[in-house]
Formats: sequence, C-alpha cells, structure tokens
Amino acid sequence: MGTQLSRRKFLEIIGLTGLGAGGMAALAGCTTKVTPAAPSAAAIRAATTPASAATATAMAGMAMHQSSSDQSGGSADQMTPDQMDQSDADKIKQFLANMQSPITQGKGGLPLQYELDGDVKVFKLTTSAIKWETEPGKWQDAFAYNGMVPGPEIRVTEGDKVRVILTNNLPESTTIHFHGLTIPNPMDGVGNITQPPVKPGQTFVYEFVARPRGTHMYHSHIHSFPQVTKGLLGPFIIEPKDKSSYPKYDREYTLVLNDTVLGFTLNGKSFPATEALTAKQGERILIRYMNEGTMSHPMHLHGMPMLVYAVDGYPLPQPYYCDTLEVAPGNRYEVFVDATEKGVWAFHCHILTHAEGPDAMFGMVTALVVT
Amino acid sequence: MGTQLSRRKFLEIIGLTGLGAGGMAALAGCTTKVTPAAPSAAAIRAATTPASAATATAMAGMAMHQSSSDQSGGSADQMTPDQMDQSDADKIKQFLANMQSPITQGKGGLPLQYELDGDVKVFKLTTSAIKWETEPGKWQDAFAYNGMVPGPEIRVTEGDKVRVILTNNLPESTTIHFHGLTIPNPMDGVGNITQPPVKPGQTFVYEFVARPRGTHMYHSHIHSFPQVTKGLLGPFIIEPKDKSSYPKYDREYTLVLNDTVLGFTLNGKSFPATEALTAKQGERILIRYMNEGTMSHPMHLHGMPMLVYAVDGYPLPQPYYCDTLEVAPGNRYEVFVDATEKGVWAFHCHILTHAEGPDAMFGMVTALVVT
Amino acid sequence: MGTQLSRRKFLEIIGLTGLGAGGMAALAGCTTKVTPAAPSAAAIRAATTPASAATATAMAGMAMHQSSSDQSGGSADQMTPDQMDQSDADKIKQFLANMQSPITQGKGGLPLQYELDGDVKVFKLTTSAIKWETEPGKWQDAFAYNGMVPGPEIRVTEGDKVRVILTNNLPESTTIHFHGLTIPNPMDGVGNITQPPVKPGQTFVYEFVARPRGTHMYHSHIHSFPQVTKGLLGPFIIEPKDKSSYPKYDREYTLVLNDTVLGFTLNGKSFPATEALTAKQGERILIRYMNEGTMSHPMHLHGMPMLVYAVDGYPLPQPYYCDTLEVAPGNRYEVFVDATEKGVWAFHCHILTHAEGPDAMFGMVTALVVT
Repeated sequence: MGTQLSRRKFLEIIGLTGLGAGGMAALAGCTTKVTPAAPSAAAIRAATTPASAATATAMAGMAMHQSSSDQSGGSADQMTPDQMDQSDADKIKQFLANMQSPITQGKGGLPLQYELDGDVKVFKLTTSAIKWETEPGKWQDAFAYNGMVPGPEIRVTEGDKVRVILTNNLPESTTIHFHGLTIPNPMDGVGNITQPPVKPGQTFVYEFVARPRGTHMYHSHIHSFPQVTKGLLGPFIIEPKDKSSYPKYDREYTLVLNDTVLGFTLNGKSFPATEALTAKQGERILIRYMNEGTMSHPMHLHGMPMLVYAVDGYPLPQPYYCDTLEVAPGNRYEVFVDATEKGVWAFHCHILTHAEGPDAMFGMVTALVVT
Repeated sequence: MGTQLSRRKFLEIIGLTGLGAGGMAALAGCTTKVTPAAPSAAAIRAATTPASAATATAMAGMAMHQSSSDQSGGSADQMTPDQMDQSDADKIKQFLANMQSPITQGKGGLPLQYELDGDVKVFKLTTSAIKWETEPGKWQDAFAYNGMVPGPEIRVTEGDKVRVILTNNLPESTTIHFHGLTIPNPMDGVGNITQPPVKPGQTFVYEFVARPRGTHMYHSHIHSFPQVTKGLLGPFIIEPKDKSSYPKYDREYTLVLNDTVLGFTLNGKSFPATEALTAKQGERILIRYMNEGTMSHPMHLHGMPMLVYAVDGYPLPQPYYCDTLEVAPGNRYEVFVDATEKGVWAFHCHILTHAEGPDAMFGMVTALVVT
Repeated sequence: MGTQLSRRKFLEIIGLTGLGAGGMAALAGCTTKVTPAAPSAAAIRAATTPASAATATAMAGMAMHQSSSDQSGGSADQMTPDQMDQSDADKIKQFLANMQSPITQGKGGLPLQYELDGDVKVFKLTTSAIKWETEPGKWQDAFAYNGMVPGPEIRVTEGDKVRVILTNNLPESTTIHFHGLTIPNPMDGVGNITQPPVKPGQTFVYEFVARPRGTHMYHSHIHSFPQVTKGLLGPFIIEPKDKSSYPKYDREYTLVLNDTVLGFTLNGKSFPATEALTAKQGERILIRYMNEGTMSHPMHLHGMPMLVYAVDGYPLPQPYYCDTLEVAPGNRYEVFVDATEKGVWAFHCHILTHAEGPDAMFGMVTALVVT
C-alpha cells in the first residue's frame, strides 16, 4: 500500500523535483501571487526531449492561504470564483502536507505478519466496528479487519500452506471469501453455502494452499453489502514461485478502489487524505488495482501510459497500453508504468463526479510524483 | 438455458458431492447446530491437490428452519443478527429446493422449434402482456415472447435461411431487432427506420440468412425501454457451419442478464429462483453471457477461472483468463470453464447491490455445482 | 466530426439507397399508409448475398405527419399506442431532415485553424458561457471553447511543436488538460497542481511537442465537474508521422460521448439533432470514440462489426471485432468499420435509458448510412 514518506525523504523529493523556492514557500503555507505567463524558451525546448521535462513551475500555482475550507462554508453555488479556487487550493495543500506526515489517523493495507505452525503460515484477522477517518475530521462508522481499512495485506508465495484465523468481534455475522483464489469449496467463505455464518464472538479457521499467483482480495461474503463497502476487505497477494517468470520492477503500489458507504476512496482514504505514489525517474512501477466497490472506476494516470499486464492475476497473452483503465467491481489488474516523466502527475478516477466536488477535488484522487 | 434437474439427478449430485448426512438433514429442513471448527488434517492435505478438494463440509452451515422469511417481516435494520442469518439461510434453502423442482412458475429461454418451408426454417414468435414470477410469490407485469421471459431460444446454423413470424398481441407496437446479426437493412427491425411499427394485432415477417456465427440476441427495437427490460428479449445462437472450427465442450449454459423493470435477473429469475449450473468434474462448460439490461454486470465465478473466448460472436485473437467478467449492455461473451473443482461455487454479479440485500442474497446470484 | 451533407448529396444518397417513391413521400412529409407484409422472394434471395441487401423497404415505415410532438403533449403514460408511434416517427423525421440541413443551431468539433510562429503551430481557444441548442428548441446553459460544443478539433502531426493560447471569458476559473498527451508537467493543466487557475479575463499559454500519436482530448481540469459535462472539451488528434504505419481508410468520424449536464449527447447534440455518419458501400471508415461524460457508454452499431484497433491512441497488439463497444469515461478508441452493407443502420448507446424515452428515441442515437 505504498510507502509512507519520511520528512527527510519528502524534502529530498522536493529537492529532486526542482520545485524551488516558490514550491517550498507554498508548502510552508505562505501566500504566493501567481501571474500566468507563457512558458520560457527553455520550457519549450525541454518539451522536445521526453525525459527531461522541466518541472520548475510544477506546483507554482499552489498559492496557499491559512484560511481553512471550513471558513468558507456554504456550497459552490454561494461561492465566488476566487473562493472556489481557494477551496481547491486548500485541499491540494492538505494533500501535499499528507506526503510529509499523515493528516488523518489510521492507515490501511499494512503488511500482516504471519506465524509458522510447522510449514503453515498462520495469519490472524479480527473484525470489529470502528470509527475510520477517511478525510480530515470525517470520522465514519466502519467495519475493519485488525482495526484498519483496507484490512492488512496478506502476502504469500504460490504453493504456500496458509491458515487464516478469523475472530468476529462485529455485532453481526461475517465470513471471509478469498476472491480469486482456487480453494477447497468448504474454505470458499460463502455464508450459508460453504460454511455457517461466523457469529459475533465466534472464530472460524480457513486453511488452503495459495494459488494461483496474482493480485487477489479477501472480503466478507455474507451480508457483504454493506459489509465490504464498510471496510471488510483487504489485498491478498500471491507471488509467483518462480520470480524470474514475472517482469522486473522497482517498486509497487496497491490501489484498492471503494465507494458507497465510506465514500469514494483509494486505500480507505479520500482526497486530500490519499497517499501519493512516488517513483524516481527511470524506475518501473507496478500498480495493483482492486475494485471492492459497487461501481466501475476508470482510473486515469496523467503523463505516462500504463501497460496492462494481468487481469485477475492471469497475465494477458499480449499486454497493451492505455492511459485510462476501467476497473470493474471484483476485477484486479496489474499494470506497469515506466516513470519517464518528472513531475506531479494527477491520478484519479475519470468519472468526474467521483473526483471533483462543487468546489474542489475530492474522493478518488491521488498523484504519481516522479523525481 | 441450463438443464432442469430431476429429483433423481439431484439426489445423485448430492451423493457425488459427498454432502453427507449433515447436508441431507439440512435439505430435509431440520435444524443443525453448527460449531465452526478448524479443518481437519485431511482437509488441508486435500487442499494441496487441486482437483480433489474435499467438499465434505460444503453446505454444512445450511441449518434450515421451517420459519419462512415472510414471518420475520421488517427490514434488516429491525432484524437481530440471528434473524439476518436466518433470512439468508432461508433463501439459500429455497435456492437448493429450486434445484429439485421449480419454486416459481414459468421458465424462459426454452428451445423454439421451427417448421421447414422448403429450405427455410420458420420460427413463430407471439408477444403478449403476462404476469411473470421472478421469485417466489413476486408476480410482475412483463411483456413476453411466447409467454416466457427470456423469450425462447432460436438456434440455427450459419448460412441457414431463417424466417421469423412476429405476431404482436401487446397493447402497444413492437418490432424485433436481431442484435449481432448481419442482415438486410429492411429486416433490421428498427421501428420507423427500417420498418413500420408492428401495431397491436399485426403480423410482420422477417427473413434473412443467419450470419455470422456466434452468440446473439433478439429484442424489441421500438419503445425498447421499457419493452426489453420488461421481457421482450431472447437468445439467438448461430452455430458454426464447420463445428470443428470451434473448441470442444461438454455442456453449455446461457445467462441472460437483465435489470430495471423486472429487477436483477438471470434468465428472467431472481435468486433464489435462479437455476444453478451443473457440471461433472473434468468437464468443460461453455457459458454464453448476454446483457439485455441497462447496467454493466461484472459476473464473478468462484473457484475456477473463465477463459474468455469470443465477444459478440467474434473469437478473440487470443483468449484470456479472468474470474470476473464485466458484461456491458448489448455485449455477449462466450467463455469456457474447466470444472476442475468439486463443490457448490457461488456465481454472481459483483456489484454487491445487485446480489445482496439488507438481509440476504437476492437478484443476480446463482451457483455452479461441480460433482 | 463527420461531414455536413448538402441537399444534393442527400438526394443522391436517397437515390443510391433505392428508397424509392414511398421513402421520398415520407421525407416530403406526407402520410403513407403502411401495411406490414412478408418480404418478397427477391428479398429473401437478396438476403443470401451479404453485400447486396435490398434496402427497398428501408424507411418505408416512416409515415410522417405534420403534427409536431409538441401537440401531443403529455407523457407516454397518457399516450395511446398510435400516439407513441407517431411521437417516435416524428423524431425520426426530424433526424432525416437534419441530414439535409441542420435542425439546430451550432455545430461543434469544427477544425481549428492554426497560425505558424516559426515552426510552432499556434491554436487559440477562448472560453465563454453560451446557450447551446442540443435538440430542436432545447437551449441549455453551456460552457464552450470558441463558442461550440464540443470545442474545435485540434489536429497536428506527431512531433509538431504546439502552442495553445487559452483566454478565459468564463465567470469562473478554468485550465486545459491535454488528456492522453505526454507533456511537460507544467503544461499538464491541472489547476492548483501544475499551474494556477486561469481566472476570468486571464490568458494562459500551453506549449509542448505533440506526442504520442492517437486520438486524444483536451478539457478543463479545475472545477472539471461540471465544466467538462457543460461543454469544455474537444478532440485532440495527433496523426502519425509515418502515415504508412497506420491502416488505410476512406473517411473518418469522431464521436464525442457526453452526459449529465447537457443530457446524453453525441458531438454535443441529442437525437434527433445528431448527425448521421455516411459511407459508400465498400469504403472503410475510421470512428474515433471519446468519452467525456461520467458514465460508460456501450456503443452499438447495427449491421456491421467494428474492428477495435487502438485504445487511448495505443494500437492493440491484436485488433478484435465486436458490435458493441463499451467506452468508459476518459477512454478513446479507434475502430474501423467496413461498410459492406447498404442501408440506414441505427447506431446508439445500448444503455436503453440513454437512447429511448417513454415515447421515442432520444439522446445518444445516430445512424450509419451506407449508400
């Protein structure tokens, strides 16, 4: 689920991106008067060489005021154009601040440690009803595995023997379905079909061999609506036994898409509390999409195409390029991005109503920062 | 549209699945106390061999009570967790009962017999307004071809001369468009463009040569909303002239997806009145998806991947695997499933609100039963 | 954005399609009594030869009355079946009239001329709030580039140096994002991230080198909802430097899909004000789809399949055929259609509620006329 940036690392990025004094000033919260201007001769020259795109003016427009969006109040209809811009700028400021240190409490999708019982990897998941902060100050009633949304990431290798011990501390029954795995039927987690509901206070044990390789998910499969959109989901990654059979990459990110009960979220957070992806120029990154929501989300990355490599864990016979990938509920995709272009690249669902409110961006918006 | 199981056949399946006494008891309607437990050493061993997955405990949780869901009344908000579980279990019980003998009246998509007029295959379709039972006790106002929803399946061979005689007994005009067929323009069935509306009491005759091969549809093309979602649709299968050009398979199913007017349906029925698909372990099944609704439906099969072979009747240059296939309105897909895993595998639209109500599964849910 | 047909050309098409006296009478507005009848022996013979499909009876049902749909008033619920048919027929009549001369004011997507500044192609875009007529008499509050919806088409060649001068005459801020282009980050047009908002009365200059080749778009990227669905979008076509690397075709059309604020539109117009596509039998046409709306639209062409060649400007490793192509928001597709079949072929979004109202077709409906 991405990498939490240290302040040192963040400043290093700032330095590398050549954001310069204007950007630093913006991040420091001061107000910068911005006059739109034609790009310099240098900029247009830079534009002719793909990988050397100057990002000197990136973020230059982020004139940040101390006024919070709360003060503006009211809806966009009541706002002046300047207030609308300010509202948007305030959120961007929060998003950048989130790159330094979290602006909301709680982080989902953290790696889940296992214990070995002989040759069986034992993972423990406990459900509970919690309050989850999806954006600053917005605490919502959620259901969580191990207190986080998405639930912790389970990561094993093809062929591993796996045991998942579920303890249900919810006020209602639940089960776990391992979505995408080929699994013995009694372990498939469908309430009242392959197993009894796991009632409040009960424990259920799943055991199986991890297959096939790929990007999968686990989630509730009884009363799954609203349970899944309320937070009962997590990534289940099965790495290939023979790693040489998989393309090389430098870093990876998982993006769990969700909607409805907790709003439009990426990894359990709404913009501006979403986490940016980062890469160094020249790196290849792997992005694992998972849609746990109730709507298709066409994810659009600015600046660089995505190479669609696998769907639901199965490599495509021939990967293909696109810049917008519609991810349907239940689908997972593995895509590669060659981080050839420096800058802060917007990355969002292209259903505009999932990403843009009446006054500012919100919901399924993040950025890929290439330094 | 699948195979209606006889009671004998159903019991045979039960035997083959090794459901055992617990499952039989559940099916007989008695109450079984279920204590969640870790799988046995045998189970985890079984899990290591793909095709021998033990299904001994499959369905073991289906403790069935005689109380009907009608008695519980109220919404999920007013239910206790136990009542929610019971409501879900009651529906599963009904679904299993439907495998033995129909729990609703009416069955759509039955094969339509033709008469030969020289070398022309003559099919007769008559529209009428009917009451259609989509789930037990839920009778809805529908429009039907030959009294069924979906309309009867027309199945011919590439190159066949086909005549379809439409008699309209609806209270309003209609036409038939043969969706996916390459057809002379005057036979294309678009009201007021390629033909006059067929008014109440009138007859219209369509004649054409069947091409191209593949999974196609026929449906109304005037006042098509709401006519199509009200039931005026049916499968139109054109088998290849050279059958050796098509992959071999052991049995086939058609799944017509629909929504809106009659609710979320598979072949005109909502869970628990949907029909299960069945296969014997080792068989390859062909599933033909057709979306006649107004929303995309990502169909998810548990346990085994789908090999996507053809879209709209056109074989893909390279088939690919997935476990969730988004079927958009108007699209048809031909997918193959190798029934390698024994058990009762849930099979549903992964838009959870199309498959899971506040208290229990409903709508676009069925199962693939591998014995 | 298609070709505006002259009256001469239109009559030529009528002649070529063999619409004959009945069709001409219909187009002239007179009332034709239509008696449905079985096709003649000739028709069924014609049906056996793909490319010679008789279109003699195409449009024969379009009995057109002078009464306008306004006179009928009321909703479909209050209409008699004959009134419903008439309402539909009236709209078709308008659609056909639109092929002769525009039935609404304004046409979007016209080619934008550039000026050369040295070797830089300079395009000027000015935004303004306008009234836009999406269907006859339906004037809506829109935002436009250069007074049209969609904005004018920018068309350059891979590697061209491009300058776009944006002047904002809207009452609120805007920016331009060049969706699909690989571009220096400061030119990416994301308000408050890569540049400051362009406030009312301000000008901003974008400069970059055009790449990669393909079918792209430009649109607002601040307050983008509702700005984009209100009209701030346009096609951005980058032709390949080496044209021999691209398949040959005889004519091309762009179809910009949009929804929400201005309704369901193709190139800024709703049926019956949409423009028909035309082709001569034997021609190959290129269709460029772009979705600028907030919903996926499965576009269905009757009569002939589409060969899907490229997504988001990137050629697929292996093109594939379909007859219904779901275009998600943000995606672009390049598809080829071989115009083998003569006639008037309906062409529409297959989400029926985007194409069919209670009484008649509307919204995302047009036709491909092959003569």
